Amino acid sequence: MKMGLLNKISDVKGVTVGHRTLIDGDIQTGVTIIMPTPDNPFFNKLPAAQYVINGFGKTTGLIQIEELGQLESPIGLTNTLSVGRVQDALVGYMVTRCQAENYALKSINVVVGECNDSRINDIAQRSLCEADVRAAIADASADFAVGAVGAGRGMVCYGLKGGIGSASRVVEIDGQIYTLGALVLANHGRLSQLVVDGEPVGAKIIAARRQTELPAVEWGSIVVVLACDAPVDARQLKRLCKRATAGIARTGSEFGNGSGDVVIAFSTAQSIPHDCSAATVDCRRLLDGRLDSLFSAVVEAVEDSVINALQAAEAVGGFDDLATVMTNCGLKK
Amino acid sequence: MKMGLLNKISDVKGVTVGHRTLIDGDIQTGVTIIMPTPDNPFFNKLPAAQYVINGFGKTTGLIQIEELGQLESPIGLTNTLSVGRVQDALVGYMVTRCQAENYALKSINVVVGECNDSRINDIAQRSLCEADVRAAIADASADFAVGAVGAGRGMVCYGLKGGIGSASRVVEIDGQIYTLGALVLANHGRLSQLVVDGEPVGAKIIAARRQTELPAVEWGSIVVVLACDAPVDARQLKRLCKRATAGIARTGSEFGNGSGDVVIAFSTAQSIPHDCSAATVDCRRLLDGRLDSLFSAVVEAVEDSVINALQAAEAVGGFDDLATVMTNCGLKK
Amino acid sequence: MKMGLLNKISDVKGVTVGHRTLIDGDIQTGVTIIMPTPDNPFFNKLPAAQYVINGFGKTTGLIQIEELGQLESPIGLTNTLSVGRVQDALVGYMVTRCQAENYALKSINVVVGECNDSRINDIAQRSLCEADVRAAIADASADFAVGAVGAGRGMVCYGLKGGIGSASRVVEIDGQIYTLGALVLANHGRLSQLVVDGEPVGAKIIAARRQTELPAVEWGSIVVVLACDAPVDARQLKRLCKRATAGIARTGSEFGNGSGDVVIAFSTAQSIPHDCSAATVDCRRLLDGRLDSLFSAVVEAVEDSVINALQAAEAVGGFDDLATVMTNCGLKK
Amino acid sequence: MKMGLLNKISDVKGVTVGHRTLIDGDIQTGVTIIMPTPDNPFFNKLPAAQYVINGFGKTTGLIQIEELGQLESPIGLTNTLSVGRVQDALVGYMVTRCQAENYALKSINVVVGECNDSRINDIAQRSLCEADVRAAIADASADFAVGAVGAGRGMVCYGLKGGIGSASRVVEIDGQIYTLGALVLANHGRLSQLVVDGEPVGAKIIAARRQTELPAVEWGSIVVVLACDAPVDARQLKRLCKRATAGIARTGSEFGNGSGDVVIAFSTAQSIPHDCSAATVDCRRLLDGRLDSLFSAVVEAVEDSVINALQAAEAVGGFDDLATVMTNCGLKK
Repeated sequence: MKMGLLNKISDVKGVTVGHRTLIDGDIQTGVTIIMPTPDNPFFNKLPAAQYVINGFGKTTGLIQIEELGQLESPIGLTNTLSVGRVQDALVGYMVTRCQAENYALKSINVVVGECNDSRINDIAQRSLCEADVRAAIADASADFAVGAVGAGRGMVCYGLKGGIGSASRVVEIDGQIYTLGALVLANHGRLSQLVVDGEPVGAKIIAARRQTELPAVEWGSIVVVLACDAPVDARQLKRLCKRATAGIARTGSEFGNGSGDVVIAFSTAQSIPHDCSAATVDCRRLLDGRLDSLFSAVVEAVEDSVINALQAAEAVGGFDDLATVMTNCGLKK
Repeated sequence: MKMGLLNKISDVKGVTVGHRTLIDGDIQTGVTIIMPTPDNPFFNKLPAAQYVINGFGKTTGLIQIEELGQLESPIGLTNTLSVGRVQDALVGYMVTRCQAENYALKSINVVVGECNDSRINDIAQRSLCEADVRAAIADASADFAVGAVGAGRGMVCYGLKGGIGSASRVVEIDGQIYTLGALVLANHGRLSQLVVDGEPVGAKIIAARRQTELPAVEWGSIVVVLACDAPVDARQLKRLCKRATAGIARTGSEFGNGSGDVVIAFSTAQSIPHDCSAATVDCRRLLDGRLDSLFSAVVEAVEDSVINALQAAEAVGGFDDLATVMTNCGLKK
Repeated sequence: MKMGLLNKISDVKGVTVGHRTLIDGDIQTGVTIIMPTPDNPFFNKLPAAQYVINGFGKTTGLIQIEELGQLESPIGLTNTLSVGRVQDALVGYMVTRCQAENYALKSINVVVGECNDSRINDIAQRSLCEADVRAAIADASADFAVGAVGAGRGMVCYGLKGGIGSASRVVEIDGQIYTLGALVLANHGRLSQLVVDGEPVGAKIIAARRQTELPAVEWGSIVVVLACDAPVDARQLKRLCKRATAGIARTGSEFGNGSGDVVIAFSTAQSIPHDCSAATVDCRRLLDGRLDSLFSAVVEAVEDSVINALQAAEAVGGFDDLATVMTNCGLKK
Repeated sequence: MKMGLLNKISDVKGVTVGHRTLIDGDIQTGVTIIMPTPDNPFFNKLPAAQYVINGFGKTTGLIQIEELGQLESPIGLTNTLSVGRVQDALVGYMVTRCQAENYALKSINVVVGECNDSRINDIAQRSLCEADVRAAIADASADFAVGAVGAGRGMVCYGLKGGIGSASRVVEIDGQIYTLGALVLANHGRLSQLVVDGEPVGAKIIAARRQTELPAVEWGSIVVVLACDAPVDARQLKRLCKRATAGIARTGSEFGNGSGDVVIAFSTAQSIPHDCSAATVDCRRLLDGRLDSLFSAVVEAVEDSVINALQAAEAVGGFDDLATVMTNCGLKK
């Protein structure tokens, strides 16, 4: 399938991503913010869905997405013990932003996903503060960094350095071009499971190193954010979310007990006004019989995003980067 | 709230209901068919949803409604051991009907709900056959019978004779008039729980009779079908389904372990074509912020339907009818 | 049904509740903490379940409860815009508590529910801080206050002053005595809907006051916490959660669009060790066929808790208390 | 991972499988019955779970499994339009079997899964009858046939001849040996997607044939049945079910819109008595932290089962068998 221009989630027009990365000795962590639209998402909510592959995780904001089928805030990603703080900072940001637009915000559903970076980061210090979230928001752009940045700073994926990855795919349905983008915070999997383009790269690395994989328990987690500009409603977006499972599986994951694997999707094709004099909205949506190419786009973009995270992340905290390891093991990439 | 003209689910234009009732000694059972539209529902599917209050039940067809958010067949109601037979008969009906319209049907999702009428009916005889289902379809009309008819023949509700009940409510949203109809197959509850218009009628009956309620285990079930002509999508219809819980609760139910309590809802406002050259459909839907009066309509119509079933059902098989019992107990109605 | 000694959730042995209430002009808010066990719940997790009646809410921690069927933290209740801060404070509390027991906590699933108190409280000020949560924890006791305290300070229920309510029921199953307790943060409903013991008290108040109810949109929310000492597993606890719907419905609620109605339940009968040399645990559980009396207990205790909140809450911020209103309207209680 | 002795689901002791295959010109269909235990499963129910990957399917019996977490009947597999008939026949079988044991069965939850074999079979003829189901039950054995037999007769998988496949894996947890078995009815996928052991075999076949894959819409379906003898409860079995997604994904599936992908799992470790004087049962279960090897077993056994179906199925109705195609295309196996 064809990739988008940047092969990033921001190929979906209007989507931007910002990071704030903390690097200071034992502190190797951060926060990543996905801005789903340049507009205030509270006033113009986006059709959205969520799907929990494995719920050993602390993501906030999911029940309202499930009920109302809409996203009304930026999406934050961070480490496990900072979810509350990032949630609170995003609430503060939205209160302030709405105030600037003369609206007294009294309720807001904020979405924050997390993975556990405590193999690298001294997580109990809870180093992130409100200013870091604001900095990540200010940093948001279409051409954002990937790898060991933002929330990805301390993440470990398939025993190697993980982090933020992103990809996109372009599909044509009945003459219309649609873009589907994915962003992952990848912190899941064991080295022995890693598959790259169908190759059992993890097993080959272990063999080349004559290494016996430590009997590590899987306790990683992966958070996937999907964006698209196709006209799909909440129910259909949930169907897209489910296909992320196949994308992750293609990189070798077996979705271990301790892995909090969560998918959030939104569409930018149409927004739902917060306040509206009319009682009804008119909307367009793809027929379900035409969704297959979008499903394929999800599978490919999610697989690509995970591999992108592994390829982009530099070594941190004793966890090697994929490129160096493959070179050292004589595995050409 | 205002009722519809007939105070039946058929106040939603196009909805009809037919019964086939078997009355022969120990055989006291039947089948009820709800035709959601005069059109072939396979060609013009209706937005639909389902919600399982308590899943001790055998209703078929729910997973496809959940996935695709649409109804493509009549809805059958019958006794617990006849679900497969009624499902098969409805498949046969749809194959034949599509054949008559020059379409070779190869897949169809048929919805059949059930309650257990074995307190009155010799259920293990599985007396219903394909011809009975065809007869019920042929019987379908807007001004259908309620009470101890069709699938309701052998049902028991709050220890009294139950069966089929129906009601409707009319709401105005932003100048538009919408009708919400409900039909129940009521076979749930214990006498001591029965509440009519807020009155603990069941307890009063027990007191008047100086009766000690037998320590009966709740094993009834209730199937609720909701229809409306408001433009709501599958997600919103699911929200409507959930409100049926409050309607049933108002009649006293505590949703016992053995009760299979299932709700199915559809909207006739717009249909989704089975085959379509276009890739997209345009649809209108109510904003979620405008759903409250429909929610109220569901609660009222479902409560009213349960009471309607009790009031309409004649005594059968040793189970008394509500009206006679209230008169005998000096409880004016 | 028989009540427990205090008619509070704390009749379930080991459960305590603490409040921190902020009262200062426009600031009328607070936080309530339910301690499910005197033990560290991270080391000895409790079987738990959650159920979302209506997901217009921001409760955190639900997906892990759903996946693993266990509770490992205190449960916090607060206002809508303070969820993140209370979540973060509870994380901090658990980190510190585990540190004191020589365990470096790196992951914790914290449960925080909320209702919107902005009709009384200047919610955007986000007045609560970490110290308030610690104070609420320190305040925890079995004989805790109810009404306009803690998270209940600024809540409005059926147009009257709402807040924290609690109740309990005692059931006997096969010779064993079990206690089921409920606690609610009640902020839901419109006055016209209010039903007390089957009486349409809300409608009577409106009639007595010759008041036309303002066309208020329902946007309240109710959070329900259930505790029991019966041996039930996560699946069964979810069944208990669902019955809370009937309890709330008995007080008149129709579960309006804007109401975030969430139920969380746990059992203290057995705990699941966090760390364990064995691979298996032996556990006892009630057969599902014996759950009906617990279901009834849930319905009654939840109904009683809502009414308790209304009866206990003093008038605040222009919202009247139920007792005074009933007296003024000549409605004896 | 180690396979079981037969590498079939029947490596889980007590599980047997029987087929009835109809082969007569345009009639190429059948029914397959999985007997979960030699005991009457109604009297000794097994912990069970279900998970719907994609709900474009007609499987019956799922809502009761979800609610009660138990299986009480054989599991039937057949074609899409025969679900009702097979359901009815299994009801009849269970009524008769219980009668023989002096029990008057009045309620039974029967599970029947289906895929659409209409590419090969003249499905609208609905050729199967009650006697066929009885024949399949009578045929049940541990060393059952796989491939184009029973329900698998007319199935097409990845554009090749599909059908019934099975596999098993043996895991050791804390010194205990457990067996996990899978059986699939494989009718899903497009040829271009097929992956065998990480090799893009489907793409290679298309290349070797200089074939342009027809723009076929995915409308296959796969039903997966998992059995294990490990002590896991319904919640844990649901977690196992979800991992089947990864096993299917490894063979290339992207879970197309039209594919009804359903997973059912049960454990034979302990049964739950239908009738019981005691109110409680004692049970053992694995801690969730020890489930990872069972998760891996599911992924491997399901992948292996799909490939097994492809390898075992002979060519029928113009759909080639995998082995011949690979040989013809010069792809060694």
